[in-house]
Amino acid sequence: MPLGPDRLAPMANAIRALSMDAVEAANSGHPGMPMGMADVATVLWSEFLKHDPSAPDWADRDRFVLSAGHGSMLIYSLLYLSGYAAPTIEDIRNFRQLGSPCAGHPENFLLDGVECTTGPLGQGLAMAVGMAIAERHLNAEFGDELVDHHTWVIAGDGCLMEGVNHEAVGLAGHLKLGRLNVMWDDNRITIDGPTDLSTSEDVEARYAAAGWHTVRCDGHDFADIRRALEEAKADPRPSLVACRTVIGKGAPNKQGTSATHGAPLGKDEIAAARETLGWDHPPFEVPERILNDWREVSANGKQAHSAWRAKLEDYSGKTDFERRMAGDLPVDFSLQDYIDGLLADPQTVATRKASEMALGAINPQVPQTIGGSADLTGSNNTKAGGIGPLTAEDYAGRYLYYGIREFGMASAMNGMALHGGVIPYGGTFLVFTDYCRAAIRLSALQEARVIYVMTHDSIGLGEDGPTHQPVEHVQSLRMIPNLLVMRPADTIETAECWEIALKSKTRPTVLALSRQNLPQIRNTARENMSARGGYRIKAAENPRRVILIATGSELALAMDCAAKLEGQGIGADVVSMVCTQLFDEQDATYREDILPNVAPDQILRVSIEAGTTFGWDRYTMTNGLRIGIDRFGASAPAGDLFEKFGFTVEAIIPQIMNNISE
Amino acid sequence: MPLGPDRLAPMANAIRALSMDAVEAANSGHPGMPMGMADVATVLWSEFLKHDPSAPDWADRDRFVLSAGHGSMLIYSLLYLSGYAAPTIEDIRNFRQLGSPCAGHPENFLLDGVECTTGPLGQGLAMAVGMAIAERHLNAEFGDELVDHHTWVIAGDGCLMEGVNHEAVGLAGHLKLGRLNVMWDDNRITIDGPTDLSTSEDVEARYAAAGWHTVRCDGHDFADIRRALEEAKADPRPSLVACRTVIGKGAPNKQGTSATHGAPLGKDEIAAARETLGWDHPPFEVPERILNDWREVSANGKQAHSAWRAKLEDYSGKTDFERRMAGDLPVDFSLQDYIDGLLADPQTVATRKASEMALGAINPQVPQTIGGSADLTGSNNTKAGGIGPLTAEDYAGRYLYYGIREFGMASAMNGMALHGGVIPYGGTFLVFTDYCRAAIRLSALQEARVIYVMTHDSIGLGEDGPTHQPVEHVQSLRMIPNLLVMRPADTIETAECWEIALKSKTRPTVLALSRQNLPQIRNTARENMSARGGYRIKAAENPRRVILIATGSELALAMDCAAKLEGQGIGADVVSMVCTQLFDEQDATYREDILPNVAPDQILRVSIEAGTTFGWDRYTMTNGLRIGIDRFGASAPAGDLFEKFGFTVEAIIPQIMNNISE
Repeated sequence: MPLGPDRLAPMANAIRALSMDAVEAANSGHPGMPMGMADVATVLWSEFLKHDPSAPDWADRDRFVLSAGHGSMLIYSLLYLSGYAAPTIEDIRNFRQLGSPCAGHPENFLLDGVECTTGPLGQGLAMAVGMAIAERHLNAEFGDELVDHHTWVIAGDGCLMEGVNHEAVGLAGHLKLGRLNVMWDDNRITIDGPTDLSTSEDVEARYAAAGWHTVRCDGHDFADIRRALEEAKADPRPSLVACRTVIGKGAPNKQGTSATHGAPLGKDEIAAARETLGWDHPPFEVPERILNDWREVSANGKQAHSAWRAKLEDYSGKTDFERRMAGDLPVDFSLQDYIDGLLADPQTVATRKASEMALGAINPQVPQTIGGSADLTGSNNTKAGGIGPLTAEDYAGRYLYYGIREFGMASAMNGMALHGGVIPYGGTFLVFTDYCRAAIRLSALQEARVIYVMTHDSIGLGEDGPTHQPVEHVQSLRMIPNLLVMRPADTIETAECWEIALKSKTRPTVLALSRQNLPQIRNTARENMSARGGYRIKAAENPRRVILIATGSELALAMDCAAKLEGQGIGADVVSMVCTQLFDEQDATYREDILPNVAPDQILRVSIEAGTTFGWDRYTMTNGLRIGIDRFGASAPAGDLFEKFGFTVEAIIPQIMNNISE
Repeated sequence: MPLGPDRLAPMANAIRALSMDAVEAANSGHPGMPMGMADVATVLWSEFLKHDPSAPDWADRDRFVLSAGHGSMLIYSLLYLSGYAAPTIEDIRNFRQLGSPCAGHPENFLLDGVECTTGPLGQGLAMAVGMAIAERHLNAEFGDELVDHHTWVIAGDGCLMEGVNHEAVGLAGHLKLGRLNVMWDDNRITIDGPTDLSTSEDVEARYAAAGWHTVRCDGHDFADIRRALEEAKADPRPSLVACRTVIGKGAPNKQGTSATHGAPLGKDEIAAARETLGWDHPPFEVPERILNDWREVSANGKQAHSAWRAKLEDYSGKTDFERRMAGDLPVDFSLQDYIDGLLADPQTVATRKASEMALGAINPQVPQTIGGSADLTGSNNTKAGGIGPLTAEDYAGRYLYYGIREFGMASAMNGMALHGGVIPYGGTFLVFTDYCRAAIRLSALQEARVIYVMTHDSIGLGEDGPTHQPVEHVQSLRMIPNLLVMRPADTIETAECWEIALKSKTRPTVLALSRQNLPQIRNTARENMSARGGYRIKAAENPRRVILIATGSELALAMDCAAKLEGQGIGADVVSMVCTQLFDEQDATYREDILPNVAPDQILRVSIEAGTTFGWDRYTMTNGLRIGIDRFGASAPAGDLFEKFGFTVEAIIPQIMNNISE
């Protein structure tokens, strides 16, 4: 039997009190959302959410996503009240202070129970779509006994207005993700004022148009909330629960206005709210009785967890399931046979094709990969290794047709990776990282193993022209912390990069791959050289005067330049700089060996990459030479473009000669 | 009287023939869309579109946007057939070749009649929303006599699936842009195959939910197309015309399949198509009779144009109107009084506040600015100078509440700028440039004067934490060609940057502005020093050993460091590097004066910017010192963060001392 309003109301007010007091103490934050959604959250967490506060990483827990992450005090309150080990009340007192896990926005790497980092609007809901996909996929693989949970989201108007919402909602509706339920905080207020300043949309009609079930409730009536959530849970479609709420509910003079959204209520209003709410307890003190109620309702999850654990013990594939959920690859995973085959029979193919070939070796070995593309399957070469479509009719499939939804794809992949049990990879053209850059950044911040297969990585794509030709992209992605950006040069490096990406459990990877064919340059593969980030692929034969540093499709050009220089008696190393991040992480001795710190009149360093030269000074040094493109591209066949932009031996050698002293 | 099908059909087939032949000749391109939409385009251009091929920049022309830009041969065919000076048939023969204005995707800077660059899906339609806003706004200012045109869009499934579509459609519906009409190429095919691989959306229901009128037609029935376009034109709401078409219509074996989307049809299929279409003319030859029909229907626009020009001659505000449309500022525009006031009474304010103050001086003087924010008006400080809201009820307003739609805002601003007559500026948090980066890139590529007011530009925003703290953003934006990225340090520089941005007719600007207060450092303003990009704001007093190079909020810190160094007898210049792009454009003598190329044991260069150090080697040289943040930020009060990340005199001075030889 659910608790009556007499007990639920104080439980909800505990959220309100903690939220307004923590924001006040921090003198910054967002009290409006937690206070407005306290009643909905109380019903959800006490009656619907399947979770065990003592085992926050239980694989079959429901996932809860606070998409409106600015209302972070809501989830901090819920975790504390439910009895999670963290945050403590001390952590909450230190809301938004250095070192507190109660950060301004919820960070998945700071607190168990925070399933994903939210704050950038719209992405929480879109990641939840990915979690719901992962749940259905694992259910199809491991059955109802082991995988049978729901994904619950609290989202605000901002989340719904963002473009990524359209993509996420379209994908969820198409895939019939019935276990995804979104509670929309329909408070009709945004930062700038009433929502009707900027939108006239019939939100429910839009969701219905995308195949969603919608239901409405009074977000301050416990019975009505319960009714709506039950209906949502029962409906086979994804559900939008429009919760009509009053932002800042409980603050008598400010509630219902944007004044409560993102600023402390102030001493007087907080006193008035205490009166309104009948909350006469000091800040950060929750009476035992209310805490007990919270802890009691949360105990249900503990029982469900125990029952599940018993089932896991009986399950024949327990080891496999646990390995999957731990994020480990099969113990005997290896690409050595595939690479040996390449060494024996070198292939001149585009690296996007090399990626497909590598996937041909990976996907049959690694059951947890889920591939996909934002409607460029044949161009990204992402469907490989015999995997079939993941659809509403067959969740066991391992290939997702994401549609023309780059941002939605990237966000969904974040959600899948964070859910665990699967390793998502997905493709689009490299230039369209601009469409999903915000999600790539969140992959990196959240330490999510997402693999971005970004093809058509330079002017080498040719005729499609400047809108499709990345110039600044590779370099600008390299600036994102905790992101591996890899630009392999041939089949072998591509396989090595895939291996690194798969094994990088806490780092996402961007693979920048060519449209055009490239020769296989590597002829040994005793170790994964790409893991060094940069390595000497050719040593100078004559006395070394030049080090050519190239990536991806320009490595072959660098080799040609080196050959030309050697022919003139000028020794030239060639360094393949597959991944600057990994190179920077090598020890000083290794880096000094590859790029010795000597004056340019002794050894000239030359970078060659068909993108911006900005930033290459780091590897060429100031007086080095940087071959690149510092303008937008153009529409023409690739060969013509490489010539026009100076990516030929004939154009580069004279520049080198001008820069080395005789 | 409209032409009958007997004359329209050959006109449409001329588009089909040119498209398939040009793609075949280029051996790359997209025949499917032009062939599928040839009938719709023929009715639109011959009966609805108000344009004068002899005066493509006529201010009151209708705007036509091919949002599905990959079908570029459609617009090239239309321009040629209608009698525009370019492209010539020779240009079309050279489709997708170096130097031809018929690039792979339509580029506004290559051809008159191409109103905007399209290709990156979704953005064309979103820019059209901006054009339609500009039209209504200018209509409200100059009346029906001078401004009375429509915006027509052809969009594909990709445009509709992209997230930015949701934002654009929401904005257009809210603003009741009835003169915006979108023809949706409803061919049910995407690159990967049938649309039902990835979407189940009821598109028309979604548009209706956003306040749009929708109507459906058979895209191969001229009368039905005409009926639908008439209905769309008459309806006071923005209209979506769902045109049911067959992709690649006319290619008998491939039509209706994704095989026609993005590859040449091949010799045999082209021969078969010629047969099917009854088109027995050689490639690139359009019979006189058909050309005459095209030129005849296009002559109507010439008359409309003449009539309009007569009205303009009679118009009392002709000079003002022409100045506006030429993109010129009022001749007596000046910020000198405002700046003199600051010099007399220095202000310690955040640069976002300084921007508001500058706008207070700008907006009353410059009638063509249209401001706005993606729901952060009070944080971006973008509403200033007494401008009121631009709404469906009052298009004369000059402030747009864009809602939580960063990408939609940026795209709309591109459209407004390209429409002409207005100068759009809009704000969000700098970190959310990631949400609209694809549109910022298009501002730059299209040479559109859009001013991005990006506030909260570093960890200095404090408690909101890493999701809201830009680290890599300023630097990564600097890599985009033709984009001015400016990070002013105080009130004076902020005013200077605004002046530069307003006067940069062919370059967009990103203003990176602080949340936190900053002292006014400049005490002279004889010339716009920010226009130099970087300049010496303090010269060494002792013998110069150090040059501190700082931007924005770190300039004050650099000044403090310099003072400390001088106190120890070490001379230190301070350079304010407001805009690296403009600095790089200065002549060598100037740059050498500011940053003399001497060995670091003589003068150590030190960069200080609260963002990534990646790329700063360009200005510090390899052996310089780079103070920055090469990881994600954290949630805490700004002061604590600056201390944690080493942005204090105490943390910096020892590093400098370690790097200068005694």
